[in-house]
This record gives sequence, structure tokens and C-alpha cells, in this order.
Amino acid sequence: MQSSSFYAHHSPWGAYASFCLGFYGRGGGFALSDVHPPDWNVYIGYARPGQLGRLLPFFSGSGRGKGAAAFVGTDPRHDANQMNVLPFQPREITRTMTWAGDTWQAGDLTFRLVTPFGPVPPLETLDEAERRFHLAPAILAEITLDNRSSDEPARLIFAMDGMRRVLSDVTSGALLGAGTGTSVAVACLPTPEAQELLHWDIVEPAFYGEPIINRLGTQGGLVFTVPAGEKRTYTLALATYQGGIVTTGIPARFAYTALFRSVEEVAAYVLEHRERYLALARERDEELERAPLNRYRKFMLAHFTHSYLANTELLMDEQGRLIWVVNEGEYQMMNTFDLTVDQVYWELRYHPWTVRNNLDLFVARYSYTDKVKDREGNLYPGGIAFTHDMCVANHFTPPGHSSYERTNIKGCFSYMSHEQLDNWILTGSLYGLLSGDEGWLREAAPVFRDCLASLVARDRNGDGIMDADSDRCGNSSEITTYDSLDASLGQSRNNLYLAMKTWAAYVCLGRVFRRLGLAAEAAKAEDQAARAAATVASKFIPEEGYIPAVFEGGNTSRIIPAIEGLIYPFMLGDDDAVSPNGRFGRLISALKTHLATVLRPGVCIDATSGGWKLSSTSENTWVSKIILCQYVAERVLGFDFGDRSEEWDRVHASWQTEGCAMQAATDQVWSNTGTDRGSRLYPRLVTAVLWLDQAR
Amino acid sequence: MQSSSFYAHHSPWGAYASFCLGFYGRGGGFALSDVHPPDWNVYIGYARPGQLGRLLPFFSGSGRGKGAAAFVGTDPRHDANQMNVLPFQPREITRTMTWAGDTWQAGDLTFRLVTPFGPVPPLETLDEAERRFHLAPAILAEITLDNRSSDEPARLIFAMDGMRRVLSDVTSGALLGAGTGTSVAVACLPTPEAQELLHWDIVEPAFYGEPIINRLGTQGGLVFTVPAGEKRTYTLALATYQGGIVTTGIPARFAYTALFRSVEEVAAYVLEHRERYLALARERDEELERAPLNRYRKFMLAHFTHSYLANTELLMDEQGRLIWVVNEGEYQMMNTFDLTVDQVYWELRYHPWTVRNNLDLFVARYSYTDKVKDREGNLYPGGIAFTHDMCVANHFTPPGHSSYERTNIKGCFSYMSHEQLDNWILTGSLYGLLSGDEGWLREAAPVFRDCLASLVARDRNGDGIMDADSDRCGNSSEITTYDSLDASLGQSRNNLYLAMKTWAAYVCLGRVFRRLGLAAEAAKAEDQAARAAATVASKFIPEEGYIPAVFEGGNTSRIIPAIEGLIYPFMLGDDDAVSPNGRFGRLISALKTHLATVLRPGVCIDATSGGWKLSSTSENTWVSKIILCQYVAERVLGFDFGDRSEEWDRVHASWQTEGCAMQAATDQVWSNTGTDRGSRLYPRLVTAVLWLDQAR
Repeated sequence: MQSSSFYAHHSPWGAYASFCLGFYGRGGGFALSDVHPPDWNVYIGYARPGQLGRLLPFFSGSGRGKGAAAFVGTDPRHDANQMNVLPFQPREITRTMTWAGDTWQAGDLTFRLVTPFGPVPPLETLDEAERRFHLAPAILAEITLDNRSSDEPARLIFAMDGMRRVLSDVTSGALLGAGTGTSVAVACLPTPEAQELLHWDIVEPAFYGEPIINRLGTQGGLVFTVPAGEKRTYTLALATYQGGIVTTGIPARFAYTALFRSVEEVAAYVLEHRERYLALARERDEELERAPLNRYRKFMLAHFTHSYLANTELLMDEQGRLIWVVNEGEYQMMNTFDLTVDQVYWELRYHPWTVRNNLDLFVARYSYTDKVKDREGNLYPGGIAFTHDMCVANHFTPPGHSSYERTNIKGCFSYMSHEQLDNWILTGSLYGLLSGDEGWLREAAPVFRDCLASLVARDRNGDGIMDADSDRCGNSSEITTYDSLDASLGQSRNNLYLAMKTWAAYVCLGRVFRRLGLAAEAAKAEDQAARAAATVASKFIPEEGYIPAVFEGGNTSRIIPAIEGLIYPFMLGDDDAVSPNGRFGRLISALKTHLATVLRPGVCIDATSGGWKLSSTSENTWVSKIILCQYVAERVLGFDFGDRSEEWDRVHASWQTEGCAMQAATDQVWSNTGTDRGSRLYPRLVTAVLWLDQAR
Repeated sequence: MQSSSFYAHHSPWGAYASFCLGFYGRGGGFALSDVHPPDWNVYIGYARPGQLGRLLPFFSGSGRGKGAAAFVGTDPRHDANQMNVLPFQPREITRTMTWAGDTWQAGDLTFRLVTPFGPVPPLETLDEAERRFHLAPAILAEITLDNRSSDEPARLIFAMDGMRRVLSDVTSGALLGAGTGTSVAVACLPTPEAQELLHWDIVEPAFYGEPIINRLGTQGGLVFTVPAGEKRTYTLALATYQGGIVTTGIPARFAYTALFRSVEEVAAYVLEHRERYLALARERDEELERAPLNRYRKFMLAHFTHSYLANTELLMDEQGRLIWVVNEGEYQMMNTFDLTVDQVYWELRYHPWTVRNNLDLFVARYSYTDKVKDREGNLYPGGIAFTHDMCVANHFTPPGHSSYERTNIKGCFSYMSHEQLDNWILTGSLYGLLSGDEGWLREAAPVFRDCLASLVARDRNGDGIMDADSDRCGNSSEITTYDSLDASLGQSRNNLYLAMKTWAAYVCLGRVFRRLGLAAEAAKAEDQAARAAATVASKFIPEEGYIPAVFEGGNTSRIIPAIEGLIYPFMLGDDDAVSPNGRFGRLISALKTHLATVLRPGVCIDATSGGWKLSSTSENTWVSKIILCQYVAERVLGFDFGDRSEEWDRVHASWQTEGCAMQAATDQVWSNTGTDRGSRLYPRLVTAVLWLDQAR
């Protein structure tokens, strides 16, 4: 990659907690119930006698604590500009991000953050020991010093700002380390080589003097004395614990609080089981390493996985029911359906039961029945629809309401009733037909039926696509998930992207009803799919080789997401549906031509950067959707882009490590500059896991 | 007062929570488990149709939210420099701080924060309803608009940054308001005049348009439509809730969590019982208003009470045992004994059982038995001593250890064994002899006995004062609470201040043992008191009229706290002990002369400001100790300072409202400039409650 200075999340599964690190000249630290990187100085490095200590550049300014001055007044020691250390320069550092890790190597130091992940079986099938393994809200780190070339012992530290206590105060020495409050701890198992640190200015005494435990200190951690001539690795737990009720609307706690009573218990657990965690991480790392993907795709999948995990949150309500939440990066909306439907490929791979959990809560609490209105404002019966999200910032919104949607709003923040109806159908179909959970599919049959009826109610002219808006919009009209991207993608009615997703919803419903033996419903869905396909195909302009983004107002925008909807039939194995020679052949052929037309510099290839832009009329582009559409192009439509493909991947990866380096995984990027535009610290990019299916 | 722009705390009792407000051009908001004023913009004001809205100046910059930009990208509306409002200018504002309140009046607006307090009986004597009344972690506010001169309705708002939800989402409309997380809420009872607000830019729609509930918003609150021609007051609850285990070392929760399940329950409770709370506040306000004190003393007692309450924390451990904590302002040390012994006058007045709670925990967990060493380092048996504090930042330190004291430290952060031994004796004597808790006194007899023995063990030469240091100091020696003030007050051996406190400890012990019928112990204590008195009196230099601060090294510092120890016998009613004609007459006479000598400009009256400085050789002066010594001078020693007294009070009050305006109550002040030097946001100044005894 071009730059190794970028933030990444490092997170356990389902704990809405991460350790953020990676941007040079700035700190990092623990983010709890949030994903914004904090700016706590982090001190990782070593010193040998008579030499200046070396630190990775994860601190800003002098790195000195400010705590002592309040006690003792002006202290000239604190006027010094710098700690007495030599930070590693970027060119001295080799950073390697792997699927379940992130490693910095500099001088004789190797520091690795380890974020093991893998399949999480349904909790009710696990005994308590297994639950603890999967839910422990901690990650591991390994700090290594190769002191073999030295005939003197060296000091090796991991410490950070914001620490207020040493762990031995409460663990009787069974754990060593530092923590703050009841929520955060950095710990290791005791060894004679390890000493705890707590002070205001922690580095200099740890490197050059006697390690200090000053309980008033505001920097804390561990120092290891590595023997002369030895190479040593020490394993750390970076543990979190958010106790008590953390949500409103549905009062709930983190599920892991039923398994662990304190952050020390968490830290002790993961250190005790470190070999199993490390093996799991190794398994993932090797899996990605082996995959036949170019290095940019490997990097992106790893980076995006890190940010997805950071946004995951497994809650338990007061009745003991689990609630699965993926938070929406910087926006903190919870279970935004536009994300759920794109993250489903990840979750079906590792924990399909969380998809069901989301689907069921959308039905039970976040569905509503509306009326629809035509352009003249006449009202007609509507049907079931779903909210855009369930809540924001740990506040569950009231039943039937999202945090995002409001009435009488033009553009952003209006309702997305039709698209979320599509999203439930699509997500439900994938789960119902791919997970093997036949029982759920049968139970959900009435919902699928209601969904079909609701879709049809929104197609008043019988052309298979939406033409009536929900009355929840008030004096406005519905929008799509691409609300903020471009007018070409914002409105729902007569929208190419949404029409294709609706076509896909009908195709999927047809397959669901066939599986359920509901022939009449299946036939209706299939008929609607045919109508939708015909409608979209009819909008193709042969002489120009594209389908306009909106079928009205003389719109001439060219958009890549025209093809997005093709993925759903493909995932269900309906190759005929997506074949130019199949029953929707005219549509598929038109889309292939469309894609070839738009993938040109100055149209949907940014003329400056060379990256994909979703719309010809906007420089706001969304990386997760690029990846999804790349997958459709390559795998579903069979495009072979040759060398262009890797060059595109290189550009897209560079956006993450350069323009968006301070934002961890970023979805909304300016296609010309590669800088972040929105959707920072985002989970949805984990859709990139599709690349692994492609690789099979 | 000179300036009305200064921060104050507004806090319920025992909740370690405050609403901070008062410095112009900056926000404020809720501080939880901390006392530093946050900088959330707070919007309090009104608008009438066709006129610019007016706001109290409790916001900085434009006051605009930044939330929308992340969703919609660059938004030109956010480039505007200012909200469309006219902040009140300082000269338009009248601020009145009362004992249990703080009121701002400007234009037709009156905004009052109400912090009711009063006696808190032992919880075990209260039924649950009474416990809820005393422990509810909320304060009240009253917002009033006089719209009688207007023939149009007006909009009146209370709103702030950092709010993420509306309360009606979870209260079904039984409460209106806004909150964030599970921890903070601003609420009112429903009335047709009230509407909830939540948005990014909350003020303009509330003043000039339609109030908006946008659940993605980051500013929230309430807007009231005040009818034309009416004057209306609305009562708000500013409620907090910190759930779950909040401490380590002794895992404990806030005691109120056993009585309330959520912040909404707290808010509803205080609004329901608002009349009783308002009456209690009125009672306190009137009591202070009636007291025969000058206006500066009234102001200071009120201001200091506000910050004391902000630092109070009533915990309950996992066995249901209560733990009373007063946090030490910016330092966050818990139950620092140097503060406990000075806050005892407040606590004996309102809740003596918390004094006992502290004393017992000091014995059970925060005492130790040391050896003592002479100057040559020879070790001898020592005795019981107590730690400087119990913990810091909600981390209870291990038994027998404070967060402050360390071994082998010269000066600040060394041990204070002797002074804390004095402090237990003095606090214990006041509680044991003044609270009427005879049972406790009898139970504590062995501790008092151990304390006497330990004091004597530290006086190896039999002159009644300390001459041996605890071996806990290692290669260093003991310090006093005035550690950071001046070398003249720092060392314990041969220290005038500590000698007088030790004399007082012996006098008090004598009275305790007499009450317990322990004649031998009483006689020993009385004998030691006589020796101490003789020693100190012998250090008096008649020709210069003072006693040096340290009885060695040719020290010539003059210090006011020479007289501090006199308060203890006086409080126990031992007028003879503090009379120039009593059994310690020579000492008392010397101290009277000493005080008259030092209270001169350039000695212990600052030549620049005219305020008291504790030591002739330091410009670091501590307001709480000034007040304590003023009390001793006036009430115990009978000084009549005439007009000088009120002028001193004026100077001391101005330090709080000017130089220390951003720090709420501040103890350590530079005596020349009146600016803060340390001990910011401090509880100990509540010692000023002594002024009310004086007024009796």
C-alpha cells in the first residue's frame, strides 16, 4: 500500500468496542460504544542502556503527562519540549495488516494486534464455556523485542494515556497491567520480566530509571525487561467491559455481561485462552493469504473487516432475549437496513442467526402499515413496510419509527418505505433459502405474503416498479439509500437502481413461494418480475447504450448501481435470471451494454483518480457499493476487465490509506481526490467478503 | 460581586454529578463522576415574533451543530457565522447566587437552578420514600418568561448540546424533554405549552419556525409557547443516572440505584415532588439570607456549598454497605483525610453519620501499623496511622495504602502518617463527643487508645510533638497537608502547624478518655498536651512577636495556620484550653501576639491584593484554610478586625469570581493575582459553614 499511516479498528465481536491505532503523529486508544479513534498517546517501544529509546510514532506533541502540575504548581520539568526518545520514522516501519491482525515492525521491535474472529454458532447451542470464548470483549496484542544482538537487557514498553490504576491492586498480582474505571484494561500474565507502570510521565522512568507506580498518574501500562541475548514475546489482553443497562427504548445490556463480571475477568479469560484465540486468528490470516486475490483486495477485505467488527454489538434485553446490532459508523444508527442487506454475505458466512435476529425485530417492532399516494395525492391502501433503522446512539426508537426518517422532508431524511420493503424481502430470501433454517421460512411465510401484497400495492400502474409513495412522506416523496449521493439516485419513483432491486425482490419472492409450495403467490411474484424487467429494459437507449438513472424529467445520469440488484437471484442460484439468454435476457443484455458504456473515464470512471464513481453526475462515490457492483460485473455478468481490475483496486485501496487515513474504513469518498466525504468508520464495506466467494 | 461570569456547580447530594454553568461565552452541562465543567453549548432564552431571539451567553462560537454535514456533505447553511440571535450582554444580566440556587435575570427572562439540600438522616432510619427524596440524583430548574407586556405569544427555550434522544420515546409522553444515553435527562411534566426539541441546529426552528424532532440530532431540549400577556414559569428536572458498578477495589454502585431504575424515573420523581424540594431550597436560601454575615461571606458560603455537593458520592457495596465519599475536586482523590477533618463542620451539621462512615472505613481498611525512625535512621516501634486518602478516580486503593503517598519521595507525595493520625483523632473526637453517638464512642475506645500510643511513640524526646518519621517514608521524611504550599509548612518534624494540631489531638483525646472513664489514658493525653504547649510556647520570639514555622534550620517564616489547631478544643467546649487565662495561657497569648504580628501587609497580608496569605514566604494561599483561621481568630481568639474584615472578605470573594472564574470553587490561589494555582473545583471550602456558627 502507498502509506502505512492510517487508523484501523481492532475489535472483539459484538462488544461495540475497539482499540484504534495506526495514524502517525497521533495517539489512539479504546473507543467504547463509539468508533471514533480517540487521541490518547500510546507508547510502544524499547530502550537499551546508553541509547535513546525508540517508540512507534503513536503520540502527539511532547507526549508528556500534564497531571503533576495541578498538584505541585509550575514544574519546570514540564516545560521540556520532548520526551527523551527517538520516534521511529515512517520509512523505518513496516506495517502488515492481515485479516485478523495488524503488525508493525521497526528496529528490533514487532508489535501485533490480534483480532480473532470466525463462525459464531447460535448461542443457545453453546455451553457457557463456548459462549465466553465467542463473547469475551477483548483483543490480544503481542509485543516482541529481538534483543539477541545485545549483551545488555533492554526495556520494552506498552503504555498509554488515560490509565488511572494498576491491575494488581485488585487482582492480587494474578494479572499485571493498567486500567481505567471499570471499563478498560491492558493486562498480561505475571512474569518476573514484567512490571506495572502508572505515573504522569511514564516513558522516561520506564526506559531509563525505575518503573514507577504512582496511583495519581494518568499514563499506565507495562514494562518488560528483556534479557540480554534473548528474543521475547509478551502477550497482552486489551480488554473492555461496559456494564449495566446501555440502551433506552429497549433497556438492554451487553450479552457478555451475563458471562463476565468485570474487565479483569475478561482480561484473565482471554490470556488463559490465548492459544486458541491466536490459532483462530492464524486460521483467518492464512485463509486470506491463500485466497487468489490481488494484494489490494486482500488489504481492503482485512481493513473493512476490522471496521465491521468495531461496529458490532450483541445485546440482551431484560427478558434475556438477544438483540444483534450493527452500528452505522460515525452516524451511530443501529441496524440500518441499507447496511444489513449488504452485510448479509458476511453474516450468512459467520453467524446467520444474527440475520434472522434482525429480520424478526424488523417485523416485530420496526414494521408499519401505510397507505400510498399517487402523484395527485390520492390515497390508496398500502401495506407492510419497514423502517430505515432501529435506533441511534443506543437509543431504540419507538415501534414503527426509525431515527432517520421524517415526514414532509424533501430529499435526505425522508422515508424509504419501498426500499426497506425490498430490503426485508431480499435479506429474508437470502436467509430463508440459504441458511437451511426451514422452520423460520415457514413461520415467515405470512410476512413474505404481506410483503408481496405491499410491493404490488405500490405499483399502481402494473409496470412492476414503484409509482406510489408512502403517505408517511407527508407532502414529500420517498428516497433511496443513495439519498445523499446524487439526485440521479435519490428519488424512489421511476428510479433505475430501485427498479432493479424491486425486480430482484420479485424474483426472490417467486423462489421463496415456490419453496413454500405457495404456487399462486409465486406466480404473482414471477409475473411482477417479468413486468419490472420489461419496464426497465424498455428504458434502454440503444443508440447511446445506457439506461437513464431516472425514468422521467429527461434525466441522463449514468449509474453503476443499475446492476446491483442482479446479485440476489444469482446468490439464490437462479443463473437463468441473470443470463442474457435467460427469461430476462433482454434486461440482462441491456445492463451488460449499460455497464460497458458507463465504465469509461469521465463517465463512471473518475477522470482524475481512475477509480469507480457510482454516478456520472456526482463525484461522491461509495466504496462498499463499488465492491458489490464489481462483484456483479465480474461474477454475475462475466466481465473480464483484465489489468484494469487490479489498477482500480489499487486506486480504491489508496483512498483508504491516504485520503481517508484518519477515518478507518470509509464508504463515501470523493472520487477525484480520494478523501472522505461521509460514512466514516463504516461497517458496510465488509461486503468485500464476496471476493472470497468469487475466489472459490 | 465584581463579576457575574463564573462557573458554579449545581448538584444533587451524593451523586458525584453536577450541572455546570455560569462562565460567559462558554457552555456548561453535566459532569458525571467528575467536576470539570464540560463545554456543551447551553441555550436558554426567548424570542417574540418579528424580534431577534435573546439567549443567555452560555455558548461559544456560532452555537451551530455540526451533525448534518456528515450526512449531507458540505452544507452552505453551516457556513453561516452566527445563529440568528442576540446574546444578552453581561451588563444586561443580574446573577444572584443563593445557598441553594443560582438565578440569572435578563430582559423578561428569569432562569434559576435549584439545588435543595438539608439534613440527611441515617438511611437506616428512613423508609424508602424518604430515601428516594434524599438520594434522587437530580436538581431542578425554573425557567420564567414575563410576557405580560406582549400581545403575542413568545417562544421560551432550554436546550443544550450533547442530547441524543427525546424522552417521550420512552415515557409515552408522561415526561417531555431530551436526554443522552442512560445517564442524563432534561425533563418537564407535559403541558400543551411544551414541545420537545432534537436537531442539529435547534435554536432557529424553535424560535422562528416549527420545533423539530430529528432523532439524529445532537442538540435537544424543550421549547415553551408562552401565551400573550402572561407570565409563566416551567419547572425542569436536570436528572442523572450512573448505573452499574462504578468503582474498583471495592466494587460498588451509587446508593440511589437501589431506589431508582433509570434517569427517567429520577426525573419523574423530582418533578412529582418539586414542591417539597423547592420548599427545602427556599428554607436554605432564607436561612443564609437572614444570617448576620456580610454579603461576601454569604456569597462564598453559597458558592463553596455548590462545589462541595458536586464532589459528594454515596456508594453501596455488593453487601449493601454504604460508603460515603467526598471527592477531591480536580484531583479526584477520595476521602482525602485532610479534607474530611475540615469538612466535618458541615457534615456534623447535616449528616454526622457520614463522618462515622469515613472514620470506620479509615480504621477497617485505611489504617496501618508502622515503625518510626529517628534522624539517624534507627527504627523503633510506631503504632497505628492512617492513609492520606482512600482512592482516586473511583479506584479504591488496596488496604493500608492511599493513592497519594509513596516511599522514598522528598516533599510532595511522601507520607503524612502523623498528620493523618492527628486527623483521625480530631475527627473522631468531634464526632464522638458532639454527635451524641455514645455507642460509637465506646466501640472506638480501643482505636483512641491505639492512637494515643501511636502519637506518643512518634514523640521520642517527650516534648509533646513529633520527632520521628514513619518508616513508610523510606529514605525520606513525613510531610503535612501543606506539602505543596511552602517549605515552611511542608515538613512534619518540628513543624509549628503540625505541633499545634498535635497539641489539639492530645487535648481532644483527654476529653474523649474522660468521657469514657479512662482516667489513666486521659492523664497521659493531658500531660502530652501540656508538653506540646510548653514546647510550642518556648519557640515564641518575644522581641519579634512570632513563632517560626519550623523549629529548626533558622527558619523565619511566619504562618497563619499556627492557630488552626485551636478550633478543636473550642468546638468541644473547652474554652479554658484556648483562653490566654487558661491552662495553656502562655501558648494562647503567644499565638495571639503571633497572629497580630503576621497579619500585616507584606507578611501574611498580600501587599498587592490585600488578601490573606497563609505563609509569609509563599504567594500560594488556600482559601479554605484562610476561612478556618479567620474563624479561629475572630471566634476563638476574639480578634475584632473592624472594617478590615469585610475588605478581606471582598478580596477573597473576588478571587473566586474573577481569577478563578473558570474553576468553580478554588482553594489554592495566588495571593497576589487571585488566580487559581491548584485545588480547583474543590469541596473543602465548605468549611465556611463555620460562619453560621459564629453568627449564632
